[in-house]
Amino acid sequence: MSDPRHSASIIAIGSEMLGITRVDTNSLKITAALENAGIPLVRKSVVGDSRGDLVAEIRFSLSHSDILVTSGGLGPTEDDLTREGLADALGLEIEVDQSIVDKIAARFAARGWKMPEVNKRQANIFRGQRVLYNERGTAPGFHLVIPGDRRDAQQRVRSPGGEGATEVADALLRVPTAAETHVWVFPGVPHELEWMVAKYFVPWLAEISGGRARRRRVLKIGGLTESAVEERLKPFYEAHPGEPVTILASPAGIEVHLITDAGAEDAESFVTTRENELHEIFGATVFGYDDDTLESVIGRTLAERGETVATAESCTGGLLASRITDIPGSSAYFLGGAVCYTAAAKTDLAGVDAALIRANGEVSEPVAIAMAQGIRQRFGSTYGIGVTGIAGPTGGTPEKPVGTVHIAVASALAVEHRKLQWQGPRTIIKWYSTQQALDMLRRFVPKAR
Amino acid sequence: MSDPRHSASIIAIGSEMLGITRVDTNSLKITAALENAGIPLVRKSVVGDSRGDLVAEIRFSLSHSDILVTSGGLGPTEDDLTREGLADALGLEIEVDQSIVDKIAARFAARGWKMPEVNKRQANIFRGQRVLYNERGTAPGFHLVIPGDRRDAQQRVRSPGGEGATEVADALLRVPTAAETHVWVFPGVPHELEWMVAKYFVPWLAEISGGRARRRRVLKIGGLTESAVEERLKPFYEAHPGEPVTILASPAGIEVHLITDAGAEDAESFVTTRENELHEIFGATVFGYDDDTLESVIGRTLAERGETVATAESCTGGLLASRITDIPGSSAYFLGGAVCYTAAAKTDLAGVDAALIRANGEVSEPVAIAMAQGIRQRFGSTYGIGVTGIAGPTGGTPEKPVGTVHIAVASALAVEHRKLQWQGPRTIIKWYSTQQALDMLRRFVPKAR
Repeated sequence: MSDPRHSASIIAIGSEMLGITRVDTNSLKITAALENAGIPLVRKSVVGDSRGDLVAEIRFSLSHSDILVTSGGLGPTEDDLTREGLADALGLEIEVDQSIVDKIAARFAARGWKMPEVNKRQANIFRGQRVLYNERGTAPGFHLVIPGDRRDAQQRVRSPGGEGATEVADALLRVPTAAETHVWVFPGVPHELEWMVAKYFVPWLAEISGGRARRRRVLKIGGLTESAVEERLKPFYEAHPGEPVTILASPAGIEVHLITDAGAEDAESFVTTRENELHEIFGATVFGYDDDTLESVIGRTLAERGETVATAESCTGGLLASRITDIPGSSAYFLGGAVCYTAAAKTDLAGVDAALIRANGEVSEPVAIAMAQGIRQRFGSTYGIGVTGIAGPTGGTPEKPVGTVHIAVASALAVEHRKLQWQGPRTIIKWYSTQQALDMLRRFVPKAR
Repeated sequence: MSDPRHSASIIAIGSEMLGITRVDTNSLKITAALENAGIPLVRKSVVGDSRGDLVAEIRFSLSHSDILVTSGGLGPTEDDLTREGLADALGLEIEVDQSIVDKIAARFAARGWKMPEVNKRQANIFRGQRVLYNERGTAPGFHLVIPGDRRDAQQRVRSPGGEGATEVADALLRVPTAAETHVWVFPGVPHELEWMVAKYFVPWLAEISGGRARRRRVLKIGGLTESAVEERLKPFYEAHPGEPVTILASPAGIEVHLITDAGAEDAESFVTTRENELHEIFGATVFGYDDDTLESVIGRTLAERGETVATAESCTGGLLASRITDIPGSSAYFLGGAVCYTAAAKTDLAGVDAALIRANGEVSEPVAIAMAQGIRQRFGSTYGIGVTGIAGPTGGTPEKPVGTVHIAVASALAVEHRKLQWQGPRTIIKWYSTQQALDMLRRFVPKAR
């Protein structure tokens, strides 16, 4: 499925990316663009603000791929060495583009400021190479095209030979067969990079891949564990060996990724065929596709049906309401909720009979059901959800250990309840309880009323 | 502050780490261990499951550092090539450790299963090198020690020379001066790696760094923007040039990191002196230290004072209650809350006078105050918080654009209000509104009652 003519590398540049708190996420956007064009990513790396390290990294990357994408190191300070590193590594000459100096100066002048001298560095460009205008910031990007023979020549010229180094080179360098090497140079600020990738890189990839494009269809699965999904997929794997199907587990659900080459003329029917097979395997556990989330799917369904929901939460502490209200337009179907962290609040806000709580305890099936029904009545909503449990780390008993959670979903005529037993820290118990509650509501709605 | 005798590289191994959804986070744990020992990380990279790429990457990394840490690629399948790649790159021999085969077989037998033949690969070890027992999984790790001269020799032996490669090698290789090279090999499963780093790597780092250890003190700042923090720090930077102070901005607040070498005998008083200076600069905006969050600090304060809080939320949709209840033990001081997504709910649950809403609109100072006071009375709590606003993307007007948020905090005797104007998507507006609400409560508590 991938394009054998090309392969790509990514380098993120900046010492701050080598610290204990930051990870490079720009590479994910670049990777997505490459994948859509069917071009394999062979390596990615992070280097600090050292000119020597940068030069070595650029050369090493280009010895493994004919497309290199860099992010970062284009700022105005002396730490920003990407331009210098590329010039050294690729044998390019840097010159000042006065029109860029003028633009930057004008930007400062518009705010009544004088341009600091240091900002002139952002007007440094590579002679004879393409400059990429950056709508979202001061640093322009670049698209550098290095002819195959010239790159090798430059490397030879710029690298004085040394004793003992000869034999290693062959192992380190795997000279690509491509006639040209392409280096795309983007700023590190995520929203600047994102804009430039979409504006310049994606169209170029579409061009070199001849309109071929990978298509990725994601099925979202709710209410199954990752291993259960794997188990169910076994016959599918056996029936279609070598086809790219991937399982990805995240707290928001299990994803089954189906990847195909949209350039093939039968791609559309191929995807449909495979999707139908997956639907047979997973049935109602498929809650959505691609960017869908449980909360967005529920929102769409409720909005379409003109129905509403209200929530009464104990152990999830408001997280269920918060997830529902993350969706734009949720005020059309979410009326509100109560967070009842005490028995009194369950009675006062969700209308749970105090005697019921005394008889069964706050964490029990009857109380979860009464919360769902009570909050529904209080808000006059189509559906009510009640969640009560023990999020821990304390508060458990032998009969009701930490992680015991009761969830109920109610309409005017029907009610459903589930008892769950989670393990893990409090925030995990909260999250998975809301995940179950949303999945219960999703399945409850079509058959309710 | 860093140890000039050593430098480190990290390689994460596995094609799945080159996809569009995963980032390598194991490296952050390794980086933290290195930083505490004062050993600089010079590069990190991700490579796929290709033996050739892996060999080249290992050699390239070792040409830039004398300590290499790898994660991943130790599983039982044929895709797991870390052992083979290391053997090739470093000239080591692989042999089977029968005692490990027996252990893995016993593990399977205990569940009534036969060990699959493929699992024997996890018993492959390097002749004469140290094997690291993995308490949390089947794959052992390794600590490989390669004498400086032997490594160079092996590279020469294993890399047949090639035309044109000579001159490049010198640029690619920067042979470290250290007498020995150390390669630490860990599995990629995060909780296995975490255990092994703590068990084997950290003690070794402490040993080679001679008990020197960096100390990091983090001050958490609330209610200031990143640029405001930078502005206030300018005189501090000028007074103490070259001292390692770092600002990190995240949605949970701005962090000022103060790093020092705890090996120095006056480290303790040094940190105290600098901390006092920072306190003079930032005053009451400092809400905590190190792992503190606004919600944990508020929790500690309320628990100590034996006081309680309740919330009435409109645009934050339950997120405020959810953040408060993320803290273990929050049931001691959080009584509950109401999510009032309609005017009727504001009246019914938070006791806001319907006439007040008609006169001022749902998003207004009087309504925010009435929500805070009303919910306090309803729950009988010491404090009440009211939040009402327009999270967007629709619902804004010229007078009250999207992002307008009113927050009020009330006790029996006092009330405070703030009007905010945010920009960004709904989830961002929700988050920063809760951040402000928590910060307002934090500052309100000491002077209230």
